[in-house]
Amino acid sequence: MSKIKLAMVGGGPTAFIGAVHRIAMRMDDRFELVAGALDVDATRGRAFAATLGIAPDRAYASYQELIDREALRPDRVDAVVIVTPNFLHYPVAKAALEAGFDVICEKPMTTTLEDAEALAKLVETTGRRFVLTHTYTGYPMVRQARQMVAAGELGKLRRVEVEYLQDWLASPVETTGAEGAVWRTDPRKAGAGGAIGDVGTHAWNLAAFVAGEEPTHLLAELSTLVEGRRVDDDAAILLRYASGAKGSILASQVLPGNGNNVSFRIYGDRAGLEWWQEKPEELWFTRLGEPRQMLRRNGAGATAAAIAGSRVPAAHPEGYLEAFANLYRDAADLIAGQAAAGVLPSARDGVSGSRFVEACLKSNAAGNLWTEIG
Amino acid sequence: MSKIKLAMVGGGPTAFIGAVHRIAMRMDDRFELVAGALDVDATRGRAFAATLGIAPDRAYASYQELIDREALRPDRVDAVVIVTPNFLHYPVAKAALEAGFDVICEKPMTTTLEDAEALAKLVETTGRRFVLTHTYTGYPMVRQARQMVAAGELGKLRRVEVEYLQDWLASPVETTGAEGAVWRTDPRKAGAGGAIGDVGTHAWNLAAFVAGEEPTHLLAELSTLVEGRRVDDDAAILLRYASGAKGSILASQVLPGNGNNVSFRIYGDRAGLEWWQEKPEELWFTRLGEPRQMLRRNGAGATAAAIAGSRVPAAHPEGYLEAFANLYRDAADLIAGQAAAGVLPSARDGVSGSRFVEACLKSNAAGNLWTEIG
Amino acid sequence: MSKIKLAMVGGGPTAFIGAVHRIAMRMDDRFELVAGALDVDATRGRAFAATLGIAPDRAYASYQELIDREALRPDRVDAVVIVTPNFLHYPVAKAALEAGFDVICEKPMTTTLEDAEALAKLVETTGRRFVLTHTYTGYPMVRQARQMVAAGELGKLRRVEVEYLQDWLASPVETTGAEGAVWRTDPRKAGAGGAIGDVGTHAWNLAAFVAGEEPTHLLAELSTLVEGRRVDDDAAILLRYASGAKGSILASQVLPGNGNNVSFRIYGDRAGLEWWQEKPEELWFTRLGEPRQMLRRNGAGATAAAIAGSRVPAAHPEGYLEAFANLYRDAADLIAGQAAAGVLPSARDGVSGSRFVEACLKSNAAGNLWTEIG
Amino acid sequence: MSKIKLAMVGGGPTAFIGAVHRIAMRMDDRFELVAGALDVDATRGRAFAATLGIAPDRAYASYQELIDREALRPDRVDAVVIVTPNFLHYPVAKAALEAGFDVICEKPMTTTLEDAEALAKLVETTGRRFVLTHTYTGYPMVRQARQMVAAGELGKLRRVEVEYLQDWLASPVETTGAEGAVWRTDPRKAGAGGAIGDVGTHAWNLAAFVAGEEPTHLLAELSTLVEGRRVDDDAAILLRYASGAKGSILASQVLPGNGNNVSFRIYGDRAGLEWWQEKPEELWFTRLGEPRQMLRRNGAGATAAAIAGSRVPAAHPEGYLEAFANLYRDAADLIAGQAAAGVLPSARDGVSGSRFVEACLKSNAAGNLWTEIG
Repeated sequence: MSKIKLAMVGGGPTAFIGAVHRIAMRMDDRFELVAGALDVDATRGRAFAATLGIAPDRAYASYQELIDREALRPDRVDAVVIVTPNFLHYPVAKAALEAGFDVICEKPMTTTLEDAEALAKLVETTGRRFVLTHTYTGYPMVRQARQMVAAGELGKLRRVEVEYLQDWLASPVETTGAEGAVWRTDPRKAGAGGAIGDVGTHAWNLAAFVAGEEPTHLLAELSTLVEGRRVDDDAAILLRYASGAKGSILASQVLPGNGNNVSFRIYGDRAGLEWWQEKPEELWFTRLGEPRQMLRRNGAGATAAAIAGSRVPAAHPEGYLEAFANLYRDAADLIAGQAAAGVLPSARDGVSGSRFVEACLKSNAAGNLWTEIG
Repeated sequence: MSKIKLAMVGGGPTAFIGAVHRIAMRMDDRFELVAGALDVDATRGRAFAATLGIAPDRAYASYQELIDREALRPDRVDAVVIVTPNFLHYPVAKAALEAGFDVICEKPMTTTLEDAEALAKLVETTGRRFVLTHTYTGYPMVRQARQMVAAGELGKLRRVEVEYLQDWLASPVETTGAEGAVWRTDPRKAGAGGAIGDVGTHAWNLAAFVAGEEPTHLLAELSTLVEGRRVDDDAAILLRYASGAKGSILASQVLPGNGNNVSFRIYGDRAGLEWWQEKPEELWFTRLGEPRQMLRRNGAGATAAAIAGSRVPAAHPEGYLEAFANLYRDAADLIAGQAAAGVLPSARDGVSGSRFVEACLKSNAAGNLWTEIG
Repeated sequence: MSKIKLAMVGGGPTAFIGAVHRIAMRMDDRFELVAGALDVDATRGRAFAATLGIAPDRAYASYQELIDREALRPDRVDAVVIVTPNFLHYPVAKAALEAGFDVICEKPMTTTLEDAEALAKLVETTGRRFVLTHTYTGYPMVRQARQMVAAGELGKLRRVEVEYLQDWLASPVETTGAEGAVWRTDPRKAGAGGAIGDVGTHAWNLAAFVAGEEPTHLLAELSTLVEGRRVDDDAAILLRYASGAKGSILASQVLPGNGNNVSFRIYGDRAGLEWWQEKPEELWFTRLGEPRQMLRRNGAGATAAAIAGSRVPAAHPEGYLEAFANLYRDAADLIAGQAAAGVLPSARDGVSGSRFVEACLKSNAAGNLWTEIG
Repeated sequence: MSKIKLAMVGGGPTAFIGAVHRIAMRMDDRFELVAGALDVDATRGRAFAATLGIAPDRAYASYQELIDREALRPDRVDAVVIVTPNFLHYPVAKAALEAGFDVICEKPMTTTLEDAEALAKLVETTGRRFVLTHTYTGYPMVRQARQMVAAGELGKLRRVEVEYLQDWLASPVETTGAEGAVWRTDPRKAGAGGAIGDVGTHAWNLAAFVAGEEPTHLLAELSTLVEGRRVDDDAAILLRYASGAKGSILASQVLPGNGNNVSFRIYGDRAGLEWWQEKPEELWFTRLGEPRQMLRRNGAGATAAAIAGSRVPAAHPEGYLEAFANLYRDAADLIAGQAAAGVLPSARDGVSGSRFVEACLKSNAAGNLWTEIG
């Protein structure tokens, strides 16, 4: 099976998420990274490309150059991976799609709803594949939860509680130039939403992924708990579903003791499911009136999605990188034309995330009123 | 040391909480239960009183009789314990206070704010002692958390998250006459608030107890997730503190898999504390940038309050009954005139709880708007 | 129902376990403590007795005086509770039984096997009731485990793993006169076994209680890991059952980080059960090839024994004191002639414990050879 | 940086561990798999090789052919990866080393001590590099534990408890032809030790790795708990260290509810460390008299080894594949001549494992007597 050829934009030597993408794309040996515009500093980008085995003539100085030149090569890449700061997602994705490349893009898809909708439309008109890497949907137990909900195991949905809590912005680290913190707290580079954009959109996506439906209305209170910060760093959001179910999202980056505390708890009238990303191998399932069950990845009670998403047997822990690699594996099937997008996050999810951020900002600006989403 | 003599109103053979009070009052041998009007069915009440060693002439047919007769005895009881359904708390407490008895009363103190304020005033004018048994404040690790917050261990407060989740009302059990469920879902007997009154007030009290301050505003969405139920059974509430801190309360009685899932998580700019009632011996403490610590009751790092509230060494688990007994032990000191009320929940807390319920109802009725509390 | 009248020997103001017994006997209101010889220092003992409401004429200077005088009273006590250091258990119990009293005795029953057998014989010949307070058998989930094993839920037994780990003797605390440590590390007062007597016998008893059978042979290695200590403080023991099952006991008092870490894990060919005393409300049950289940006290899947041993609903934690009180409640039924001894630890268990200690000492002295037990 | 070229022997389409090796070698992009003799069925092996991108002329029918032909190529592989059933490890490794290849070999290194010693000698005389993939030493928190012990954080060592428990052989699955079970329970293919060879050697290696010293004596009881099985499937082993420390290993493959339950608990006179493979991101550290600390990979308190062994930040879970990939990363440095073997398991560890198995068999045959190791 020939490998899918990728170019990467962003993901230089100091970027966390670029390295994650590279490991994920290697895990199942379906991709080759053959081109890149890895760094705003072109010299540094080229030097780094060399360490990744990228040929010098495919280590480009800018994304424009990458797209222009790759478009002309007979052995042009199949897809462009975008791991830049948020504000560049849109122009890079747009250029790539227009040049006929498939795109694998870090979230959030864009920094405005307008751009998101434009991009989604472009995906449609160009017919290119577009994958948005909402990591947490790659976890096997998250996919199992989604299947169990869809199969009616929970009964009629009552409540969806999703949290994404961190503490790495608990101090004003952006004032000391800490990597990643500077652009993430700069509204021009990260978008108008701070915590709601950076982690809230993950929570939003996770809620919809597991529940199988999106809320119709939200009520958001955005806070800036670290003095002087230019974006929100904490958000409490109430959700309403058309079905009558209720929910809430808590997204915060300033709560000491929370590393990457992503979780969902979802309850119906017959059963409940609970999952914590820091212990991703366990999915707690309790039918009303029965003992709590600890379901384990690829173990007793595993659904097809969890089995398909596993590389090793139960009790041999998989984690974040394997979840990420599941997105890449599905992306490989999609780009190779071997499978439909399935549960892979798409441009539609990117639009949904932007609508969520817009609705949060609108609700908050109105004094925390219920706001229709999109 | 002579024992404090108690009368009990309510707490018949089928009542859960009456038995809990009796165990709690015995645990440290500071009380004698010598009188009672234990059941609406006077015959059944008398028979039950006999099994508790209450003399026949002090097994009364009604609370009025109890108070009238005890008031005339030279060996009259020192205090009246009220463990009836909610709607009787007020008239019993009022009569007891007016007759000169101290009162130990189950929460909620009353079913309306008006009654709560009247009762608090009566406590003041009569000078009698009044203890409201908000159980969870009796847990040693809850008291330790309060002390650590008060000592500034968390720094400036950022967020207070309290949950009280159950599943025993997940089905319409009141329609099958299930014990406790009938009156708790009858607004005339339980008060206008369902889940917010029954478990929400505990969460509210716990939040204030640990944080050391009450929010000034709340925004509440009350839901009835079981069809046909006459009161709310699920509530999501946002909180604002004068200090700028944020918070939320989730109170629900209809989420499968939640037994008596009471918890708080409280974060400042320097550290965070987390506690789950179902594992009450552990208090998780994390200073920003340091490893998570699992503090254990009466173990390394215990504060004075946690040590005072312990009967056995660390790692010999104490639980709910010991927490309850801590309230009784403090009540004994108070009634015997040996100590001030200290952290014991009082009529003031009862008023606060009523204000919370009223504010929730008001916010909800207004379409979930921010509402000033009290 | 008239209360059972108790006398206590030992359990003075500084003794941990005496206070535990008093709380446990009060919990269900079945006993009255009316007499005592509470302290080797008679004056201190009398003063302390007064605080417990014991009449001055029943606060005795010695156990001999207590037994002699009580035996003559028309309102003599029904039973004697023995909570002295180990070496006094035998003479006090012997005297009490011979004078016609029932006995509730702390473990270990005696300090030698010879005494244990003599006492068991005396129990038989006198026909008095004798209860040995092996605390851990009072936990509802331990009783549930026993029932599940007996019901064949595990299938054919394979392995029984029991641990009792502490760290309070991790330093040579007996050299600084620390309370409880001095006599526990003195072979004349505690018996020849150190850790095997103090905590090993609990583990032994727990193993037999849950498995429903005793091993026939053991192989023990006793160690003294704190230099200069006069008894073993760490023991690793292998077990063999007649049925072919295997097992092991690890008992140590010198391993930092272990508070009162008692646990069992028991496995058959069909399922396994696991329990940790520090989280006593949870019993983990896994059938081969099925998801792990977390059974909770008095919750879904509870057996009759667990329900009977519960005072409050599931998820309202009970603990060590309630477990202890379950022994007292059963003792009340036994002494009042209302029930047979049932699962209550008896003199037979005391003899078994002594045989265990003797076999450990013998195996160890022989260079850790397999040794027949009793 | 040019990649290291690998050949794989074994690891066909149905083999679990071969796939694990391939993922691990890809994770950091340091290797290329360019040759293989992947299956005893040569046709199947060649077909599978094609799916892995191995050129047809390097898909060999047997290991002999692989070694003979690769040895003659100018672009010969640098190292041979051996993932066959146990009995082939020795001949393949021998042939590879003699032909001048470096070797990466699954454990156990050989099926007899004699072979192990011969191989270790061959490693020495040929000067080739030899890596034994004892997976669990690749976990960052295991490496951190080793560093903390070496740094004296625990003080003088007291006790080392290691367990490796599974349940996949709890039924006689070899009689139904279950994959992996047939050869693992055949003494001619797996070696004389069953559970002690398959999982016991991992436990032994882990004990030595963390403690930094090997025991001098052991006492082993080997059991066959599933009737009719031809090898031991359960082993309880006591350990003695020259320093006076004690230890034990429990290795079993027949205990329901245990998936891949590898753990160590190691205690000194100053502190203790505890780790469970199923939650590999957490290392519990408790200094005597201080609160328990939960150390997290790459988080607060991380040592250099844990940081070096991490690919993503704390709280983004890594697992089994990343641990395995750490061995490969270190192997890459070693084979490329960029670093010494460091903590990588070597032929010396293979010999040690064989000595352990031999000592277990000898002790067991002698009736469970203390036996000198090696």
